[in-house]
Amino acid sequence: MKVYGEPTRSIRSIDGGMAVEILDQTSLPFRFEKVVLTDWRDCVEAIREMRVRGTTLTGIAGAWAMVLATLENPSNEALKTATEVIVAARPTSASLACAVHRMYSTLVPRESAKRFAAAVKLAEEMTQEDVLTNRAIGDAGKSLIADLYAQIRRPVNILTVGNSGWLSTVDYGTALSPVYMAFEQGTPLHVWTTETRPCNQGLLSAWEMRQVGVPHALVVDGAVGQLMQQGDVDLVIVGASHMTRRGDFASEIGTYLTALAANDNEVPFYVAAPSSVIDWHMTDGKREIAIENRSASEVLGVKGLDRSGNPLTVELAPIEEAAANPAFDVTHNRFVTGIITERGVIAPVDLATVFADKQPKN
Amino acid sequence: MKVYGEPTRSIRSIDGGMAVEILDQTSLPFRFEKVVLTDWRDCVEAIREMRVRGTTLTGIAGAWAMVLATLENPSNEALKTATEVIVAARPTSASLACAVHRMYSTLVPRESAKRFAAAVKLAEEMTQEDVLTNRAIGDAGKSLIADLYAQIRRPVNILTVGNSGWLSTVDYGTALSPVYMAFEQGTPLHVWTTETRPCNQGLLSAWEMRQVGVPHALVVDGAVGQLMQQGDVDLVIVGASHMTRRGDFASEIGTYLTALAANDNEVPFYVAAPSSVIDWHMTDGKREIAIENRSASEVLGVKGLDRSGNPLTVELAPIEEAAANPAFDVTHNRFVTGIITERGVIAPVDLATVFADKQPKN
Repeated sequence: MKVYGEPTRSIRSIDGGMAVEILDQTSLPFRFEKVVLTDWRDCVEAIREMRVRGTTLTGIAGAWAMVLATLENPSNEALKTATEVIVAARPTSASLACAVHRMYSTLVPRESAKRFAAAVKLAEEMTQEDVLTNRAIGDAGKSLIADLYAQIRRPVNILTVGNSGWLSTVDYGTALSPVYMAFEQGTPLHVWTTETRPCNQGLLSAWEMRQVGVPHALVVDGAVGQLMQQGDVDLVIVGASHMTRRGDFASEIGTYLTALAANDNEVPFYVAAPSSVIDWHMTDGKREIAIENRSASEVLGVKGLDRSGNPLTVELAPIEEAAANPAFDVTHNRFVTGIITERGVIAPVDLATVFADKQPKN
Repeated sequence: MKVYGEPTRSIRSIDGGMAVEILDQTSLPFRFEKVVLTDWRDCVEAIREMRVRGTTLTGIAGAWAMVLATLENPSNEALKTATEVIVAARPTSASLACAVHRMYSTLVPRESAKRFAAAVKLAEEMTQEDVLTNRAIGDAGKSLIADLYAQIRRPVNILTVGNSGWLSTVDYGTALSPVYMAFEQGTPLHVWTTETRPCNQGLLSAWEMRQVGVPHALVVDGAVGQLMQQGDVDLVIVGASHMTRRGDFASEIGTYLTALAANDNEVPFYVAAPSSVIDWHMTDGKREIAIENRSASEVLGVKGLDRSGNPLTVELAPIEEAAANPAFDVTHNRFVTGIITERGVIAPVDLATVFADKQPKN
């Protein structure tokens, strides 16, 4: 997608795998900073500190971290250590674990001297795969928006939670991919984006949309129900960081409340997600998906710009105050109208059939 | 309630009605500042800018504004103007309109020279009435908490939204009054308080509880559902700014989402409110209760303390960004387990019977 008119991706390899360039998402939306990483440990730090974030992008960043680790030391032992350390940067991220283990298992059968080239090749493939998948999600989802417009003949009001835009992937995004594609083909639309405290990923969605001119407005997380009761939401599209075989899913905190409100107000509720987030061994999301609990400090403070335009974290409550900070919540499949995947829009009940080929045999 | 060990009320008359002392709630929880107002126009500004806030307190502040207006000029014309200007400070606040009109209609039949004394007397009565009402709500509600403790034999986890503590009333509060009274009598409990963006009234609840040592923790507004799915909430108690005869009610933004989550997770959901917030002419809250839409700037920024401990508002998104900012939402009575009133805990369906004497005759 474009940033200040320039085609940009959230991550890219430079110098044939010798370095990785990321956008520092902890600086966004306040500052647009590209960072070049040459040490895999810096990739780990970037993942841990959410300089790169979003399910898919976290996985891709993990793959590139493995490339840099291979560059430093391609031995079995070193790769094993790197795998463990990278996965531990976001221990509940299934996509990170999956991407890093895929790298590891591809590399270890090869002879040491050929591992770096193989690592670059696979990381590049995974990067391309993500872009194609997200385009397919956008293609599948844009007709939902166009069809709704054909019915209501006024701009379609879409609500999204957090950031499942291109910043959470390599490009296009998941939940926002249908929005961008519908917007490009001229379907009149308007997007509500919740700020999604404590990390305010919704501000990233607003920033993304500002870059390309998609009409949108911010709301606080608590306002979602009132917006729907007023009839101001026609369609919800959210992302997912984790999904079970029956379509229960984890997503940014507050998504479950949005699903409840959509259900109570009969607003169609869609999840846009690549099939790679589905864990075919899991059924009951509430019971089986592990939820990351992050630091209380995120709740007790918030980052913004001071009057001179300098980024600054202000304290909302004394640091000794207690706070709980679950980063995700789980939504049951009974609230899901459809799942927008790279193979089209699918009812939760049909997930296992449509992706029969992707499931482990045992 | 106590602040730094000192018994304190959120509003009090000084010098026999010549002035009103308030706590500037826009400075809280960062600074504890008492402000003395001697001009009724300053009271209007305090109400508009939410230096005093909360349904009940807004009404009481309106009554004291009328006292100062009467002091300045007790003529019919001046009082009529003052009434209109004060009510317009928060145009959707029923309690403000009600209190101010009650003052006006009590004053105008009297001769001009006796109006000030009458105004002081009535404002004092309304102030005392509020304290007694909130104590009664606390008494009624504390046994809900004690009964639950008797069943579960571990600290009762109570969740509240925003601030319906003593800062939203003259003293004790509504939703927090049962908490304070249960805590005083030794019932083990712990309170979750949502921050309640954009005005972060939840930080006021945390500040209140810190003053008296009630165990509590902050969560972001979006985390309510996840807390309940984890089984970490035993009981919800929220306040109400407006209620219909069947028990639909308006409360701080996000309350409706909390009700939906409580319903989905079978957590008992109580509203603590004096009968004075009930509008007996209204039935369907969603259709009939007017919702105040406040400035986008509240969503686009947030107030906290910088590193030197100075209060500061930081910008979260560019000021030209669009934002919707409904201050309240409406919850249907079907989500309400019971209403904690000054006459005990009442099912929504019994409201009209228990308060038959309070209803207008026509």
